[in-house]
This record gives sequence, structure tokens and C-alpha cells, in this order.
Amino acid sequence: MASIFTKISHRELPGYIVAEDAVAIAFLDVFPLAKGHVLVVPKQEVDNLFDLDDVTYAHLMGFAKKVANGMRAVLPCERVGVAVIGLEVPHAHIHLIPINNVSDIDFSRPKLKFSVGEMEEVANCIRQSFA
Amino acid sequence: MASIFTKISHRELPGYIVAEDAVAIAFLDVFPLAKGHVLVVPKQEVDNLFDLDDVTYAHLMGFAKKVANGMRAVLPCERVGVAVIGLEVPHAHIHLIPINNVSDIDFSRPKLKFSVGEMEEVANCIRQSFA
Repeated sequence: MASIFTKISHRELPGYIVAEDAVAIAFLDVFPLAKGHVLVVPKQEVDNLFDLDDVTYAHLMGFAKKVANGMRAVLPCERVGVAVIGLEVPHAHIHLIPINNVSDIDFSRPKLKFSVGEMEEVANCIRQSFA
Repeated sequence: MASIFTKISHRELPGYIVAEDAVAIAFLDVFPLAKGHVLVVPKQEVDNLFDLDDVTYAHLMGFAKKVANGMRAVLPCERVGVAVIGLEVPHAHIHLIPINNVSDIDFSRPKLKFSVGEMEEVANCIRQSFA
């Protein structure tokens, strides 16, 4: 069965997509640790990031860099932090999280909740950073 | 002034080095969240990972994949998690952390302490995974 990330990529589930190419897609995490928290996902449905072939992995990492630099340009944060954990959804994904201090990247914290309007606004903002 | 990571790379400070090439170096974090917690560092002293030029960044990420796959082969863990935070040492570094659950990657937790013998043993173990 397709993962929830594949379903977002196929537009079978809604998602706040901020960037996409043939190999990868980036969209807002709906359980964010910060406003503008993005997931970068390879379209290939592999469980563990480090099991991707070298070419796909390199492409995905370059794509993540572009997205992160777009986020840095438009979001009010000290840094864009990176996390790969992968114990929950068995489809590799890279968290890009706007952070101001180390506790901003603690996944055991309660997740934040933003309105549809706020999510759309921040997704638009990130999307336009690539324009 | 050279960063502590550059000093480890130059052998001016001791370090439990597990892998190295012309562009990057990997050594045990001396304030680990888990036994076998590794830092992957570009030799170029840049503060923010995403400010590396594309070629150096791609090389670093490929190097990190090799180290992570070596760790997976020899360390008893569910996954090798990844984190980039960078609010403390102004020299880009990627944390590779053996994890079994999501709280294993919480940087606000007290760090672990292992003996020199334990650190040498796990460093050796990771090093030999590439042999």
C-alpha cells in the first residue's frame, strides 16, 4: 500500500507542497515543531534514507539544500535544522525545521497546530522563495 | 582561530576518528546521546551546512552515507538518525546517532559518558566496518 507521503505526492491526500521535481517532493509537516517545518521525501518509497542508491540520495540531498536555503531566506529563524529519524512512517523523510534554540528540534515535545490559513501562508512564502 | 573540529582534524586535539578523506572527517562525539554517536564534519570551516558549495556539500553527504551504513552494520540499533543543529560550534557538523526510539535524538537530554576504553572500542568497531 502506498505510504501517506506517496499519497500526498500523487495528490490522493492533501498537502501543503512547497517544492517538487521528478525525484523528490517537499511539503509542510502537519505535525510541526515550528511554523514552516518541512518534510523532504524521495518519491521512491524506501524505508531507510541510507538504503537509497547513491545517485538518488545525492539528488535528494541537493534538493533538500535548495529547500533549506529557500526557507532561510523567508522564515524568521536562526537556522534551518535537519533531522532524520524514521521510526514512524516507513518512507524515508528529512525534517527541515526552522530553529532558534536546541529544544526546537526535540521530537518528544507536543506538536504545534496552525490554521489552514497559516499553513497556506507559510507554504506560499517558502514556495515563492524559489521563484 | 581554528574550531575544535579543525583542531581534531589537524591532530592538535585528540579525537576518536572513524573515517577521513580529503574533504571530510568523522569522529565520535565526546558528549554522546548514544554509544557510537558520530560527528561528520567538512574540513572546510564553514558555519552553516547549507552555505557549503554544491560540490563540497554533495561529497560530504555521500561521505556521511558511507559512515552511517558502516555504523548500521556494526552497532546494535534500530536506525542511524541524523541531526544538524549547529547552534553551539560555528563549524558545520552532522550528527549520526544510533537510535532505537525518538527520544534517543533529544539534544536537551543529559549527555552520556563512556570510558576511554569504551570510546576506543566503539570507534574501532565503526572503523573496521569500512575495511
